[in-house]
Amino acid sequence: MTAMTDTLPNRRGLLIILSSPSGAGKSTLSRRLLDWDPSLRFSVSATTRAPRPGEVDGQHYHFLAEEEFKRTVNDQGMLEHAHVFGHFYGSPRAPVEAAIGQGRDVLFDIDWQGAQQIVNSALGPHTLSVFILPPSIAELRRRLVGRGQDSPDVIAKRMQKSWDEISHWGSYDYVLVNDDLDAAFDRLKTIVSATRLRRLQQPWLVDHVRSLQSEFEELA
Amino acid sequence: MTAMTDTLPNRRGLLIILSSPSGAGKSTLSRRLLDWDPSLRFSVSATTRAPRPGEVDGQHYHFLAEEEFKRTVNDQGMLEHAHVFGHFYGSPRAPVEAAIGQGRDVLFDIDWQGAQQIVNSALGPHTLSVFILPPSIAELRRRLVGRGQDSPDVIAKRMQKSWDEISHWGSYDYVLVNDDLDAAFDRLKTIVSATRLRRLQQPWLVDHVRSLQSEFEELA
Repeated sequence: MTAMTDTLPNRRGLLIILSSPSGAGKSTLSRRLLDWDPSLRFSVSATTRAPRPGEVDGQHYHFLAEEEFKRTVNDQGMLEHAHVFGHFYGSPRAPVEAAIGQGRDVLFDIDWQGAQQIVNSALGPHTLSVFILPPSIAELRRRLVGRGQDSPDVIAKRMQKSWDEISHWGSYDYVLVNDDLDAAFDRLKTIVSATRLRRLQQPWLVDHVRSLQSEFEELA
Repeated sequence: MTAMTDTLPNRRGLLIILSSPSGAGKSTLSRRLLDWDPSLRFSVSATTRAPRPGEVDGQHYHFLAEEEFKRTVNDQGMLEHAHVFGHFYGSPRAPVEAAIGQGRDVLFDIDWQGAQQIVNSALGPHTLSVFILPPSIAELRRRLVGRGQDSPDVIAKRMQKSWDEISHWGSYDYVLVNDDLDAAFDRLKTIVSATRLRRLQQPWLVDHVRSLQSEFEELA
């Protein structure tokens, strides 16, 4: 199965939201999705935390000073935002609206707080929300420890945050267990391909029905 | 892409509703879907109209006397029913509940009145509704005339009914234009495959999250 974008004229862009505890494979699945369909845009989050080694401004995050972040929120410039571990995170609105206006889908790698804000916004009917669950907590912990970046204290804190995140799985449209990356990715592709076919994503249908109506009235 | 039924343990059956004006290819798409996935059950409608030549009781329709039909409706034995062109039509409840209880999906070939009744019933969250549009009214008319069964009067009446049906396209989850049967069928398969992955169709996820929770509590 290949991406169907070409065959869908005049499409309304979709907001594809992926959430999961850290370590469940969300970043890998996001990267695969972006490779699969180059028309997809990734929503680069803004944050007030400091860059980690190797992180590039505008690519991994938009790194903002707290004052600038708050001003953007006040100007309705964030689709969603949250305060986590003492830092602000948010999704800038402008690039998303530009992309969906062109019929492009936008991929969000955000937590449950951000997901709920977007799903409950005016863009809600155009969202697709997918939660990725790990096969086990032991596996999740192994992946967090395996990164070798963090102290035991930080890992304990992240495990608690993972559980907080998992506890919100029930408010997503789709939930995938990532026990096999290829299988999980196949399912994710099927879900995205189908959701692009939703009536609401295809505004050209309105014109098609209008032409059927004219034809019917001429015949009658 | 093949049917994913085998890989989905403990699934909650889906009510797949196909509607379209007569002549838009709905019956052909239904047949293909049933061939594609033999685990799928077809909901055989009940009707009070007389059998046409070649129609088999229990296969094309359950042919009921009006009194029996009305008694079944009174006993809550129909998931939906409607009165069309002087006859009653309805979907018997018992075979549907038996099938979805076994995790099997049920396919309905019904009109917008029946679709709305099922979507608005307690089974609503487990429905998938798809409307099939014709590429043009001329093509629809050609197919109706081509059957050679009906008088011009009946054809005019059917064309009016077709337009009534089309006018309800906007309340379906998905809408497909059947300009190419293979392409329409591919899309239908994608939609069905994805919808089977919806959170609500996978009650086993509840057990999976419960096991993650026990594991997390033991670690903490």
